[in-house]
Amino acid sequence: MSIEVDYLFPSQSDGAKQAEMIAIGQTAGTWSAKYVHKEDCFKEHLGQVVSLDRLENGSQVARIKFPLNNTENDIASLLTMIFGKYSMAGTAKVIQVKLPEGYGTSPKFGITGIRQKLGVWDRPLVMSIFKPALGLSASEHATILQEVASAGLDIIKDEELLGDLPSAPTLERLKACTHVIDQYQQQTGKTLLYAVNVTGRADVLLERARLLVKNGANALLLNVLSYGFSVLEALANDSEIQVPIFAHPALAGAICGSPDYGLSYEVVLGTLMAHAGADAVLLPSSYGNLQLKAHQEQEIRDILRSRNIFPVPSAGIRPAIVPQALADYGIDVILNAGTGIMDHPAGPQEGVNAFSKLLK
Amino acid sequence: MSIEVDYLFPSQSDGAKQAEMIAIGQTAGTWSAKYVHKEDCFKEHLGQVVSLDRLENGSQVARIKFPLNNTENDIASLLTMIFGKYSMAGTAKVIQVKLPEGYGTSPKFGITGIRQKLGVWDRPLVMSIFKPALGLSASEHATILQEVASAGLDIIKDEELLGDLPSAPTLERLKACTHVIDQYQQQTGKTLLYAVNVTGRADVLLERARLLVKNGANALLLNVLSYGFSVLEALANDSEIQVPIFAHPALAGAICGSPDYGLSYEVVLGTLMAHAGADAVLLPSSYGNLQLKAHQEQEIRDILRSRNIFPVPSAGIRPAIVPQALADYGIDVILNAGTGIMDHPAGPQEGVNAFSKLLK
Repeated sequence: MSIEVDYLFPSQSDGAKQAEMIAIGQTAGTWSAKYVHKEDCFKEHLGQVVSLDRLENGSQVARIKFPLNNTENDIASLLTMIFGKYSMAGTAKVIQVKLPEGYGTSPKFGITGIRQKLGVWDRPLVMSIFKPALGLSASEHATILQEVASAGLDIIKDEELLGDLPSAPTLERLKACTHVIDQYQQQTGKTLLYAVNVTGRADVLLERARLLVKNGANALLLNVLSYGFSVLEALANDSEIQVPIFAHPALAGAICGSPDYGLSYEVVLGTLMAHAGADAVLLPSSYGNLQLKAHQEQEIRDILRSRNIFPVPSAGIRPAIVPQALADYGIDVILNAGTGIMDHPAGPQEGVNAFSKLLK
Repeated sequence: MSIEVDYLFPSQSDGAKQAEMIAIGQTAGTWSAKYVHKEDCFKEHLGQVVSLDRLENGSQVARIKFPLNNTENDIASLLTMIFGKYSMAGTAKVIQVKLPEGYGTSPKFGITGIRQKLGVWDRPLVMSIFKPALGLSASEHATILQEVASAGLDIIKDEELLGDLPSAPTLERLKACTHVIDQYQQQTGKTLLYAVNVTGRADVLLERARLLVKNGANALLLNVLSYGFSVLEALANDSEIQVPIFAHPALAGAICGSPDYGLSYEVVLGTLMAHAGADAVLLPSSYGNLQLKAHQEQEIRDILRSRNIFPVPSAGIRPAIVPQALADYGIDVILNAGTGIMDHPAGPQEGVNAFSKLLK
């Protein structure tokens, strides 16, 4: 069992040399003659260049195989190994990571678990976002939630910018909204998930997440790249956190945006999220005006679904794109419409209805 | 009090439009007429474009002011705000972040505290790294440590690639090395810091760090960008972790390498590390063949020192560059020589001596 990683080098690079630098420098390194008796031991940790190909446009792709045992079965040690020091050495981008199926953390809920919680099996789910982003009070959150719940919205989430702010502390927001969800459940027998944005220093965040769940949170939202994959993995492995985790892609462009540096969107929002325990992953959809191309979105969709994780195309989601989204995604998708629902001229309720009509 | 951020846009960008997108879209966003009664409240959260300048090469720099109260006094909420969603929208790079002095976390030890622990006030400190990176046993680590300690090395650190691996579990490595350090202290009255690499899921990592400190660890090493700034902040604010934290820059190139995307090395290894509680920050020094330019290295040095944090130039550190390093850094620097010491033809002991001679 090993880990295979594809690196893209520009045409002018000495691809063979760079690939060797990675295979050796990111693993056991070199050793002097005095360690000749330990060579077998060091060699077990060495990486290996599997192939080096030149693409039509002249750029090069090296595939490197790393021993699984160099890592700790998590994303952080994987990142340190495949790109840690080398990321500062040359021009290269990680464009594919192949992990053994059992690597990392599997989702606790995923597509099946989220559908089970909602009792909805035969259509895409619809999600929205509390807007405006900052400045609403806890009770104003509850009022908005009441409107969209009555229209049958499946999931609502906090704006990713909204942390534990004095104007609407996280726990107060949750309590006000949980009250609405409880009433809705009593009246209709149905439920709605509210992905609360969990924030803070790693220790504070983990404690807060437990507190939120104790107080009725039925889903969490995490800005994985701002806080670290290690925090997502901690949440996903925490026995007290028995709710789905929605992974937000904030900051992904800083790592994935450049064509020549960093790691690809497919790797970060697909492979890494999928092995870190996310139940649903938000994507900067190609329907809007963010950076993702349709083929990248499709690849991420397939990577996530192969591990029972919901893809959540976001940004630019409006009723007009629903037919296209259905063609692209089928039913196992969460359509995340923020302004598409909240800014509907006739109010959020009608915003939800506009989607529901198209999904029946 | 506010946060000021400079964004670099390419020459063909509509800089004014992009800057507005950030100032509004990364803060309160827009609101409809029905919220007219809450406008004052929303406006308090809005960002503001302070200036937009065109550089000689045609690219543009926008300075945007953000309300301090949109964040939670930590790095993760800062990153989400200044670049979260927008990072996926266009071509832009964050090239400067100005934070209020009290923002975030200050180092517990820093330059003064580390010097106090070592009792060395009048010269640069010398640091080395256990090599080869992977495959040495705990007792082989101890043997190497004995050699370099007897030559008077100030600090040793784990290779950043070395986690909690079966060949040398972290706690065993620590125990074997602590024994050597204790003996050294008894014999000489002097001490040596060993920055143990602390790894794992966020919850595991924090627990492990406490365990290591309880078992005698006198310094920690953290791959901040692999694990998350939130983890560094948790360690730095933990009352049980009363030892200096060395921040490793692994993965920085994925965020800082591109000239057009991400955040600059100065921001990530300078400003953000300096407000996240690091006591010493390793840099990919311009003396080696990594990406940092001399002027970037100098800026990071100055940002770190302004908060009493040790800059630790690394990679390419060898006796031949000591005069240049002294000219560039003066004495408040930690010179980190991995192979420069470990691969000395006459052994690590002579490797340390070669540096010591030049620093007396």
